Amino acid sequence: MSAVADRIDPAVKAYVDQRIAELASRLPDDRVTLVVFSGDLDRQLASLVIATGAAAMGLDVSVFYTFWGLTALKKQVTMKGKSFKEKMFSAMTPKNLSKMPLSKMNFGGAGRAMLMTMMREKQITSTEELFAMAREMGVKQIACTMSMDVMGITQAELFDGVVLGGVATFLGDAARSKVSLFI
Amino acid sequence: MSAVADRIDPAVKAYVDQRIAELASRLPDDRVTLVVFSGDLDRQLASLVIATGAAAMGLDVSVFYTFWGLTALKKQVTMKGKSFKEKMFSAMTPKNLSKMPLSKMNFGGAGRAMLMTMMREKQITSTEELFAMAREMGVKQIACTMSMDVMGITQAELFDGVVLGGVATFLGDAARSKVSLFI
Amino acid sequence: MSAVADRIDPAVKAYVDQRIAELASRLPDDRVTLVVFSGDLDRQLASLVIATGAAAMGLDVSVFYTFWGLTALKKQVTMKGKSFKEKMFSAMTPKNLSKMPLSKMNFGGAGRAMLMTMMREKQITSTEELFAMAREMGVKQIACTMSMDVMGITQAELFDGVVLGGVATFLGDAARSKVSLFI
Repeated sequence: MSAVADRIDPAVKAYVDQRIAELASRLPDDRVTLVVFSGDLDRQLASLVIATGAAAMGLDVSVFYTFWGLTALKKQVTMKGKSFKEKMFSAMTPKNLSKMPLSKMNFGGAGRAMLMTMMREKQITSTEELFAMAREMGVKQIACTMSMDVMGITQAELFDGVVLGGVATFLGDAARSKVSLFI
Repeated sequence: MSAVADRIDPAVKAYVDQRIAELASRLPDDRVTLVVFSGDLDRQLASLVIATGAAAMGLDVSVFYTFWGLTALKKQVTMKGKSFKEKMFSAMTPKNLSKMPLSKMNFGGAGRAMLMTMMREKQITSTEELFAMAREMGVKQIACTMSMDVMGITQAELFDGVVLGGVATFLGDAARSKVSLFI
Repeated sequence: MSAVADRIDPAVKAYVDQRIAELASRLPDDRVTLVVFSGDLDRQLASLVIATGAAAMGLDVSVFYTFWGLTALKKQVTMKGKSFKEKMFSAMTPKNLSKMPLSKMNFGGAGRAMLMTMMREKQITSTEELFAMAREMGVKQIACTMSMDVMGITQAELFDGVVLGGVATFLGDAARSKVSLFI
């Protein structure tokens, strides 16, 4: 290419390069953006396999946790300062990722336990380990502020490094991503 | 740029501009397309937050309502002229958006009522208001004709301005969108 | 365009064409990629309508079946050589696509039967026919190897022509697709 580029008028080259750069800036980045809405362990697992897989392939990854999905970001649950309804909501939703049920065949936790055992026997990375891996690999984790507000979840209850954001944060990342999924 | 453009051969400029325009026409539009399959209030709420958020950011938005999701587009339910099975189906599915259950912790409507109260207390726009806002903001709402046919839903039961369409309508919009999600 | 192209310096044309080709190679292909995670008949149906619709429009289609969704790819169930837990898992999950429940209003299979009858009466292609059509139309079906491993599903249990792959296979296809959906 440099051979061809050297033979042409610098003004022409400048014009072409400028137009190309403008267009290139409108192409999506090497980025994957996920919305994790679900509070089911199996769907959370799928999101983590995709997020860590994408990070391993060198893609930037944003995961926007909203609604029931937010539970994955909880490191602890605080009742102090919460209203009665917020306390009830906290008490009725799982404490964290490792307490989530399956979307199917949960059988009060028996199906869940069986699946976890089968994963361990096959030496497949557990959901908790995948979550830790995602964080170490630089996956950007965003907590939906509207959901936090509705459910009365405070930033102190979330893991360090979690970014707070709204729908505009999600759409900003998604609009420049090659792949966006709602899980 | 005009300075550079002025100094080059008009024929060269025409060629470059033509090639750039061809390529630009293959870039996605500033558009978001959603499939709303779910008949759960919480997932419908998520779709409306994304749709109105995208519209507020100046993006074009298409929402394709299919299967259980179609209920959101019902303004009334008519039994006249329906077969026995269609009547049963109508009777067994929620009348409209405001009657939908939660995907989790619905507890026969108690969890749903609690969530609605918590949203109101935090002064968060209700699902019904978000739906009305989406319509006012020009979000294109498409009812899946195959689902209407299977379930025996007529156009007279849907809100005015709802467009009827099939999978080709959805794929046409999705293929030129920056973000497409299945909810 | 050839008229314009003929009038300009061949070296300039070569440079422009090269830069355009580089950029064009970064645009998505005419491709749709789906993750089918759900083992519900209604969601599988939605995925098949989209997959066959896209194939009919001339788009390349990849469908990555993972977790409960994998059941759709089973042509038979073999118990031989499976561990006790794997046998239990096989026994507790549906045998194949035609045995899947609905995500809503299944009522132990009654809602499912009613929906199937309504589809037949309206002469809508059945889920099994759509699945066969997708295969005939060249839709690429990928079985998630991690899910197969966890659940103890062997390749011999899957339809011929199913490709085995992991998250990298999915992301490779999704990153060059115009539309990617998680169902």
